[in-house]
Amino acid sequence: MSDKTWDTKITDISPNRILLRGYPIDNLMGRASYPEAFFLAITGELPDPSYVRVLDAILVSSVDHGVTPPSATAAMTVASTGSPLNAAIAAGILATSRFHGGAIEGCMNLLLDAVSRMRTGGDIEKTAADIVREYKDAKKRLPGFGHRYHTDDPRTKRLFEIAKQEGVWGQHIDMAVAIQRALVAASGKRLAINVDGAIGAVLCEMGIDPKLANAFFITSRLPGLVAHIYEEITTQKPMRRIVAADARYTGPGERHID
Amino acid sequence: MSDKTWDTKITDISPNRILLRGYPIDNLMGRASYPEAFFLAITGELPDPSYVRVLDAILVSSVDHGVTPPSATAAMTVASTGSPLNAAIAAGILATSRFHGGAIEGCMNLLLDAVSRMRTGGDIEKTAADIVREYKDAKKRLPGFGHRYHTDDPRTKRLFEIAKQEGVWGQHIDMAVAIQRALVAASGKRLAINVDGAIGAVLCEMGIDPKLANAFFITSRLPGLVAHIYEEITTQKPMRRIVAADARYTGPGERHID
Amino acid sequence: MSDKTWDTKITDISPNRILLRGYPIDNLMGRASYPEAFFLAITGELPDPSYVRVLDAILVSSVDHGVTPPSATAAMTVASTGSPLNAAIAAGILATSRFHGGAIEGCMNLLLDAVSRMRTGGDIEKTAADIVREYKDAKKRLPGFGHRYHTDDPRTKRLFEIAKQEGVWGQHIDMAVAIQRALVAASGKRLAINVDGAIGAVLCEMGIDPKLANAFFITSRLPGLVAHIYEEITTQKPMRRIVAADARYTGPGERHID
Amino acid sequence: MSDKTWDTKITDISPNRILLRGYPIDNLMGRASYPEAFFLAITGELPDPSYVRVLDAILVSSVDHGVTPPSATAAMTVASTGSPLNAAIAAGILATSRFHGGAIEGCMNLLLDAVSRMRTGGDIEKTAADIVREYKDAKKRLPGFGHRYHTDDPRTKRLFEIAKQEGVWGQHIDMAVAIQRALVAASGKRLAINVDGAIGAVLCEMGIDPKLANAFFITSRLPGLVAHIYEEITTQKPMRRIVAADARYTGPGERHID
Repeated sequence: MSDKTWDTKITDISPNRILLRGYPIDNLMGRASYPEAFFLAITGELPDPSYVRVLDAILVSSVDHGVTPPSATAAMTVASTGSPLNAAIAAGILATSRFHGGAIEGCMNLLLDAVSRMRTGGDIEKTAADIVREYKDAKKRLPGFGHRYHTDDPRTKRLFEIAKQEGVWGQHIDMAVAIQRALVAASGKRLAINVDGAIGAVLCEMGIDPKLANAFFITSRLPGLVAHIYEEITTQKPMRRIVAADARYTGPGERHID
Repeated sequence: MSDKTWDTKITDISPNRILLRGYPIDNLMGRASYPEAFFLAITGELPDPSYVRVLDAILVSSVDHGVTPPSATAAMTVASTGSPLNAAIAAGILATSRFHGGAIEGCMNLLLDAVSRMRTGGDIEKTAADIVREYKDAKKRLPGFGHRYHTDDPRTKRLFEIAKQEGVWGQHIDMAVAIQRALVAASGKRLAINVDGAIGAVLCEMGIDPKLANAFFITSRLPGLVAHIYEEITTQKPMRRIVAADARYTGPGERHID
Repeated sequence: MSDKTWDTKITDISPNRILLRGYPIDNLMGRASYPEAFFLAITGELPDPSYVRVLDAILVSSVDHGVTPPSATAAMTVASTGSPLNAAIAAGILATSRFHGGAIEGCMNLLLDAVSRMRTGGDIEKTAADIVREYKDAKKRLPGFGHRYHTDDPRTKRLFEIAKQEGVWGQHIDMAVAIQRALVAASGKRLAINVDGAIGAVLCEMGIDPKLANAFFITSRLPGLVAHIYEEITTQKPMRRIVAADARYTGPGERHID
Repeated sequence: MSDKTWDTKITDISPNRILLRGYPIDNLMGRASYPEAFFLAITGELPDPSYVRVLDAILVSSVDHGVTPPSATAAMTVASTGSPLNAAIAAGILATSRFHGGAIEGCMNLLLDAVSRMRTGGDIEKTAADIVREYKDAKKRLPGFGHRYHTDDPRTKRLFEIAKQEGVWGQHIDMAVAIQRALVAASGKRLAINVDGAIGAVLCEMGIDPKLANAFFITSRLPGLVAHIYEEITTQKPMRRIVAADARYTGPGERHID
């Protein structure tokens, strides 16, 4: 073995045999769901059974948010020039950054730090209040709290409900709730945990590295990007000026699954 | 309503209410799997129940193929320069094009055309043989058949098995099998249906537009790209020269799930 | 030498010595202009002296076109999310495709074909008229002719003027002019050669491969993309909705250089 | 004027009239070089006449560095999959980040800080020595100094020579030289100013914002990326494994221009 070899622990390939983290892909197919395979690929192990439904809920939660987010604008704009699907998706993903999706990672770092501070003395309410005051003094926004459009994000409530049902609830979600309460108390404003904050809190409970946070947002939003790109190329003229504010929703009315 | 308005049928947003193709996202969370939400987003309707396990199998089938595919190389290379996760993913996706993943779309167009020709006279074996001869005369490769590494792709066998179990099997998969037989007969070589061809055949049964084919490959491969990027930035020095042939698999040995 | 070696004719690197197509970079610096180095890099030889001023004019001609082109929109949108400069530039470049900048390549293929037809019999006026009629019958637009905004593109006139001054004028520019005349005659409308068409015609005179056409547009537009990205991040709030139609030009009034 | 209007100072467009920072593009064509138009676009004003030759030298200095840099690898890899030219360029640009080209920005920030410290007391040699010691204590590398391949980068010498000839030399280049001397004195190793450091020092003299540094590297490297992409698609098979170490230079031998 030459000294130039380098190690990879992800996939072992030999003729007619593909092992992902040790599991034959064909063994996973039909037995592991996509979110399970996703978790396996990026962490090295299949998720705890209690995580499976929560992972699905995370990946469904941010699947689309209409035509206004910058990722949708960038993807539709590139598609409109005749660039292929993959290039339009890539442009959309280049727009999922610090201010768009990035609050998941920000909130994870915030909560990991807060829980660590709480563990070394101080109770949860005091730690939360301290943090809110520190951010206020530094004139910084708390990542994962507040939304410019939704005052009470239904996705947050639902994700926390599922996390509770599945037993994926611990000090990090508790801390997120405590910070939200402290924030309301300090500001007098109704500032809810947004979906990015909720995802971040749940990912902390699963032990995910914050450096991987954006991968969850990008995977979740991918179907939305594809939908907007496909709608653009199949229903609109090339090179039109895309003004999100002029869009009119003409799809199906509200419906539900059981 | 100004004459500048344009229609979108994907997502309806109002405060604290996000409807994807009519379904509240929070209604989908915990009830629809990610592959179902993916199908809903891009086609407008939830998949037939028989599709659900097949969709999961498709998205799991191409989740990774080690360090050698160009999408992995491009993603690791960009990550190695200090670019953020989303930029490295974007670079990987820019490499999922005609010769890498593109055979899904090519095979879909081939099978849709072949089935259409069969329906207007001619039986399946004759149509398959005609097509194989036409491609041979034009010195073109049949997209979705043969693999430079796997002679008998285990993912193909497993995907077709699941499709059969779920009743998602029809003339397009039959045609893929017929073409494979005709190809072997004409060439004398063992040329199997590869995983791209198998996915293409199954997507034809689900009525997916070939223009959307690459979205399935990109979504499937996304976890693999993330895994390679994360491994690169957490275990390797920046700006190293990445030579796939020098990689040594040091992860877990073969293991299975039930 | 192993049988795995592959050939590159671009750059030879050894310690403290970098040869681009044979020329030491430090020999080129201060002696060759950027457009000359660009031409050397992509074609293998320094340009004919008569090309130098024309190349500069080409690269200056499309340096920017305000906030409305999709490349500017995509770049600003990505920059607005906190993505770094290079990612925003990449998004802008992903939008320079078939319908945005792509007419250069289209027009080059059109003119190369037209001149080739003319040379094998038929005079220029007849060939031009034939082509206009063929496109009309096929309901296709002639790439490089007409602009949705400029009826008489000042960049075309200036580029042809400089090409004439420098002696870079031949059958391809003649053919572009003949087609424009035939188009006006056939349509009764004033349809001018646009800047993409003019660049395409001049690149044909220089013997550039049409596959390289987009490189000229991308290089030319790069400073404009950078300018819009920099303006966005230094003067606007993150994540704003960018509506090109609401932009107001507040820069310097008209001024000239001698 | 609605309150939604926003200001742009870059380009004013009206029918048949395109003003870049006030200058009609057709007035610039043939009179301003591409580097001048680049400078005008991104800074708002044409460069001082003394800058013109220096700008050209900067943009020529990093035009290519062979097949090993990650930007070349990423671009060739994407091109090899059948992705179009603009997508391959975009991938290459995504690889021009912190560890590849990013030292220009890093060195600019270093020099701006150093000169500012020098101006508020302390002479140049002491400031340089302090900085070298601080970086050593913090175990950080000084951006812009040292190169993993070139011990005495010929591009640095030439760029400084041209800057001196044109009178674009001031305290920032002096400081770069002083830091290099202090670095050699402290380390006992021969650590030269690399081309990124030299470009950074010269850009400081021109008053360029460090946030724009990467735009100079990207523009300079663009012709190299195009050359490698074009060589890849015209001389190699699709989807080959690209191993930079196996490349053999077969282009022209050393030659010079006067």
